Amino acid sequence: MRPDGRQPDELRPVTITPNVNKHAEGSALIKMGDTHVLCTASVEESVPPFMRDSGEGWVTAEYSMLPRATSTRSRREASQGRLGGRTLEIQRLIGRSLRAVTDLPNLGERTIWLDCDVLQADGGTRCASITGAYVALHLALQHLRQQGLLSAIPLKDAVAAVSVGILRETPQLDLNYGEDSTSDVDMNIVMTGNGNLVEVQGTAEGEPFSQEQLLQLLELGRLGINRLFEAQRAVLAG
Amino acid sequence: MRPDGRQPDELRPVTITPNVNKHAEGSALIKMGDTHVLCTASVEESVPPFMRDSGEGWVTAEYSMLPRATSTRSRREASQGRLGGRTLEIQRLIGRSLRAVTDLPNLGERTIWLDCDVLQADGGTRCASITGAYVALHLALQHLRQQGLLSAIPLKDAVAAVSVGILRETPQLDLNYGEDSTSDVDMNIVMTGNGNLVEVQGTAEGEPFSQEQLLQLLELGRLGINRLFEAQRAVLAG
Amino acid sequence: MRPDGRQPDELRPVTITPNVNKHAEGSALIKMGDTHVLCTASVEESVPPFMRDSGEGWVTAEYSMLPRATSTRSRREASQGRLGGRTLEIQRLIGRSLRAVTDLPNLGERTIWLDCDVLQADGGTRCASITGAYVALHLALQHLRQQGLLSAIPLKDAVAAVSVGILRETPQLDLNYGEDSTSDVDMNIVMTGNGNLVEVQGTAEGEPFSQEQLLQLLELGRLGINRLFEAQRAVLAG
Amino acid sequence: MRPDGRQPDELRPVTITPNVNKHAEGSALIKMGDTHVLCTASVEESVPPFMRDSGEGWVTAEYSMLPRATSTRSRREASQGRLGGRTLEIQRLIGRSLRAVTDLPNLGERTIWLDCDVLQADGGTRCASITGAYVALHLALQHLRQQGLLSAIPLKDAVAAVSVGILRETPQLDLNYGEDSTSDVDMNIVMTGNGNLVEVQGTAEGEPFSQEQLLQLLELGRLGINRLFEAQRAVLAG
Amino acid sequence: MRPDGRQPDELRPVTITPNVNKHAEGSALIKMGDTHVLCTASVEESVPPFMRDSGEGWVTAEYSMLPRATSTRSRREASQGRLGGRTLEIQRLIGRSLRAVTDLPNLGERTIWLDCDVLQADGGTRCASITGAYVALHLALQHLRQQGLLSAIPLKDAVAAVSVGILRETPQLDLNYGEDSTSDVDMNIVMTGNGNLVEVQGTAEGEPFSQEQLLQLLELGRLGINRLFEAQRAVLAG
Amino acid sequence: MRPDGRQPDELRPVTITPNVNKHAEGSALIKMGDTHVLCTASVEESVPPFMRDSGEGWVTAEYSMLPRATSTRSRREASQGRLGGRTLEIQRLIGRSLRAVTDLPNLGERTIWLDCDVLQADGGTRCASITGAYVALHLALQHLRQQGLLSAIPLKDAVAAVSVGILRETPQLDLNYGEDSTSDVDMNIVMTGNGNLVEVQGTAEGEPFSQEQLLQLLELGRLGINRLFEAQRAVLAG
Repeated sequence: MRPDGRQPDELRPVTITPNVNKHAEGSALIKMGDTHVLCTASVEESVPPFMRDSGEGWVTAEYSMLPRATSTRSRREASQGRLGGRTLEIQRLIGRSLRAVTDLPNLGERTIWLDCDVLQADGGTRCASITGAYVALHLALQHLRQQGLLSAIPLKDAVAAVSVGILRETPQLDLNYGEDSTSDVDMNIVMTGNGNLVEVQGTAEGEPFSQEQLLQLLELGRLGINRLFEAQRAVLAG
Repeated sequence: MRPDGRQPDELRPVTITPNVNKHAEGSALIKMGDTHVLCTASVEESVPPFMRDSGEGWVTAEYSMLPRATSTRSRREASQGRLGGRTLEIQRLIGRSLRAVTDLPNLGERTIWLDCDVLQADGGTRCASITGAYVALHLALQHLRQQGLLSAIPLKDAVAAVSVGILRETPQLDLNYGEDSTSDVDMNIVMTGNGNLVEVQGTAEGEPFSQEQLLQLLELGRLGINRLFEAQRAVLAG
Repeated sequence: MRPDGRQPDELRPVTITPNVNKHAEGSALIKMGDTHVLCTASVEESVPPFMRDSGEGWVTAEYSMLPRATSTRSRREASQGRLGGRTLEIQRLIGRSLRAVTDLPNLGERTIWLDCDVLQADGGTRCASITGAYVALHLALQHLRQQGLLSAIPLKDAVAAVSVGILRETPQLDLNYGEDSTSDVDMNIVMTGNGNLVEVQGTAEGEPFSQEQLLQLLELGRLGINRLFEAQRAVLAG
Repeated sequence: MRPDGRQPDELRPVTITPNVNKHAEGSALIKMGDTHVLCTASVEESVPPFMRDSGEGWVTAEYSMLPRATSTRSRREASQGRLGGRTLEIQRLIGRSLRAVTDLPNLGERTIWLDCDVLQADGGTRCASITGAYVALHLALQHLRQQGLLSAIPLKDAVAAVSVGILRETPQLDLNYGEDSTSDVDMNIVMTGNGNLVEVQGTAEGEPFSQEQLLQLLELGRLGINRLFEAQRAVLAG
Repeated sequence: MRPDGRQPDELRPVTITPNVNKHAEGSALIKMGDTHVLCTASVEESVPPFMRDSGEGWVTAEYSMLPRATSTRSRREASQGRLGGRTLEIQRLIGRSLRAVTDLPNLGERTIWLDCDVLQADGGTRCASITGAYVALHLALQHLRQQGLLSAIPLKDAVAAVSVGILRETPQLDLNYGEDSTSDVDMNIVMTGNGNLVEVQGTAEGEPFSQEQLLQLLELGRLGINRLFEAQRAVLAG
Repeated sequence: MRPDGRQPDELRPVTITPNVNKHAEGSALIKMGDTHVLCTASVEESVPPFMRDSGEGWVTAEYSMLPRATSTRSRREASQGRLGGRTLEIQRLIGRSLRAVTDLPNLGERTIWLDCDVLQADGGTRCASITGAYVALHLALQHLRQQGLLSAIPLKDAVAAVSVGILRETPQLDLNYGEDSTSDVDMNIVMTGNGNLVEVQGTAEGEPFSQEQLLQLLELGRLGINRLFEAQRAVLAG
């Protein structure tokens, strides 16, 4: 039994609230337990220089934590004058994950900016950002279709992510902050609706891990991500 | 009649929700119409270098807008590597306003950080930040008293703020973004519970204004701020 | 009686020396007591991106203090790699104040840069900058007219500024540094030649102030600014 | 057959030259085909602030590419004034990988800086950096032991890394730049001498990949890394 | 004959006005023709970290040009967020030149900051800065002696500097901007009162120069610097 | 006799290895004793903005030291977020020196970037960079001629550089780090094949120096540079 009473293969309570921002073309507030991330999708009718005249679109992400998202206040990156390595790493991951399911040629020469701002953090913020950003992206693309700017929604599949880890020698699903900071292995899994992998990032925080443990973690992740796909579908069908 | 149906002396609907962040010692989400600001108060058990060994405490503020708080996406200041002049000006104003009502000697050698993050903007964000930050600050000081770290709440008075402006030659209370961007005069008024002024910042955007107009705007501001004091008291009494 | 022997409603000795820089289209060295600011107006035959193709001109200001303008040496902002909040706030104020009296459409698509460099500081540097920058701007526009680039001087009125404050419970005009740093209220007033207000920025450094005190300060400021208009006229008529 | 004539499970020619820098406590120049990385290990007799008084040591890494390491010249990060996201991500990975095999408590309160500078790049620079940095680290620790500062070499195991990928639907070992930029899946594997995993980072550049493919890639990586361990041992035994 | 009517071996008119800043321990405004530099010397009762506990003092310089010191406005380095290479090179030269004549052990553990701010530029600003900074430094050291903080003035000799160049195949003394920008060779010479050299920096802007030309330039520089020593002595004796 | 057994007029052993980088159009690794600099020349088919439409080409240089090039590790400038004054000064010197011998009009509208990266430092790195960069530049221009992009090699002469200094009252050629840091005078001389001077930079580190000493140093430098020209010719003829 885990500190919050969950089974090893149990997600925290998940809620996804769509359309939480009156300005953004798409938006969603995702809560996985005490981790709350506000995701907006903004449409810009141009692409970055390296994509110009390609006829294709672009999807990119930015990620940030409010200073008091964490249990002690963190200094703002804007005040420090630069983005930290962790932030850059996470926003690159979110961007790659969402591009993996977007049909960029059919998006046309426009950019979708996905902003993932963590209002409150309790572990798993990068995974929650990916899962929530997918909903915001889908809503923004629906909006473009409703405006007649797209004839179909240029998405090839759904995408969602979850963290898994080994804690007290047991694989566990969807670690909260307390669990994450004491785990031996921490893995983030990003998967598409058809069960294939977009990203697998496993890190031994303490002891290196065996291939068998890697496979157990992948199974647990698959289980959790399938439940997240259900939550996404419920919102987008609504 | 104003575009949203308000009278010239009518505030937008105001709601203040306390304790919206599980980590912060004090927090409040303030909504003034479509302007939504998340305010947290964080306690740090030390003071900045220029206050060391003074025996007094310090109150400081940081302000930021999420990139899609605005009708078109703004670039993050963290990505640009520096805070803009508008941000620095606003966070200095919020800090001064809250220090004006705090009994710094009785706070003791600790710092209260007030973070005001605009989730959605529709004009008046600096004033909403001051009004909301007061609630977050009050809650954080209550928390310190409940922990036995303070014997009384070191606040000398309440503080709140509102914007007023001259639009189509008429003084108007609590401008939204559409009104603000077309007004001739824009004034921010910060007042304490006893009716005295902490800050008055009036700017002619178009034609310079007369002293008579200044007085009309002050009256209108006083009216609005008194209603904001009621909203603050209702939350803090709750 | 004030430390330097002035009456409460007395300005420090004011001198404005025009054409102190052989390169600039307009320039003035303003001395208000021991506060000395070198103001230059530089003409650039283009406008910033946001004004392009508007057919209008632009006026903008930059402000800086030499490191030993102050009683102890301050670190250069260029060495620190960024402008401080105070500098940004002041240069925005100077720019707004001068734009308020400039007929931007008749200036044509050109920018006037107003550089205000404080050679020696003794309080009131932002107000002296505005008063001196007006002279530099006027001279630069005369220069453009003499060159046949303008048919008339595109200024709608004069503009000048002064600080006022409450010190030992008495309103006082044109505070020097020693007075400013011990005052209870500090107000900067920017006024046009016809007596209307461009900016009013009042701040309670100690106790909040009443509306009655605000009015007393405005009266005192009006008195001082009228004397500054005389000094400007004497120079420009010369 | 691959463009350079290798079999799918064949590494590029590997050479590791130890002690290439007369100042550094440990150093190695690793060449994997046309990828050349100069690795130095520098000993600093203190630890970063967050480790002080822990009694433990620290290992950290920095990574950089010379501007003309690449086929077209890249701009220097020092000239741009900040490290890019890719650089930060890679140096964090190198640091974590080497810490995973270091016995930090027995290192004592000192820091080992591992600098990995890519003199020439042809794919797989981060993996070559890890493999080469292990040799530099080992040599620096030997040096400390020879000086009597350590009684044993505080390493728990060897560590090495290799990239694998799926190209034309076939898993391939040790991709060069041309292969890497056209692969569908790109995976970096960091392994310890006993065959356990320190890091697994797999990314679908094109189509998402199946779990079966993931396992094939892991097998191929294991094969290659075992050969790298031999090369490391040959050098360190020499 | 030169454009301004000078002989090849003639300096521009030189004036040095001491004590132009009421705050600085020493100051001087030096004018060499239309080149005007405000030099202040500020005393700080500590030394930089690398000098701590050495028992010796330190002398350092900073150099800057006001934006409209030049014939067209230059962008402020503070706005650009960093010092340019030319500025860094010049301030390092000024610092070295003044340290060469200062008896650092007898200065004691304090730093003298020499700020050289170019109010108006017409060539030769770095040389004028050195010549003027020497006067400001001497005055600041006199001030310390008068306060009883030093028993003697810790200067070993005077120092001054001048530029020389080859223009239309003729060596010329003290180039103004028009001459400097069209010269073939540009040389800055820094000399002490006893006729020895502190710095010689000669650069071929066009054709490389012969050793014979170098010697002619040195002679011309010596002539000019001797006149500058007279100007310094006249001021310091005054 | 010098610590490493050399005569006062003896260079350290010099080797120049051409074509050490498979990507660069020209490259050379120069070793002067324990000072090792990797020089690459990269061709870019455009010129900086200030040269556009001039019909001429441009040559520019960048210089950097690997962190452990020095006897104790130095912090990376990329991590500090800015180039130091020493780096900027050196890369400006290298650029000027190579431009002095390049026929820019006949280069055509292209830029040659010379990157000088110090792999190991033992004094004289800026001089070694100039001598090595000349070889890399020459090779890159040969490459352009072989490609038919140039009809002749646009070089007017060779260029090389050496440091000389006064140590224990004796002029010495090609100082190593230990000598350089204890010398009284340090001079860098850049000369062309016909014996004329491009740059002379002499600095008194301790006592100022006489004109006679300057001449002795120039003679010694000339001797050393002539030997470096031989080494360059041997490589380029090879």
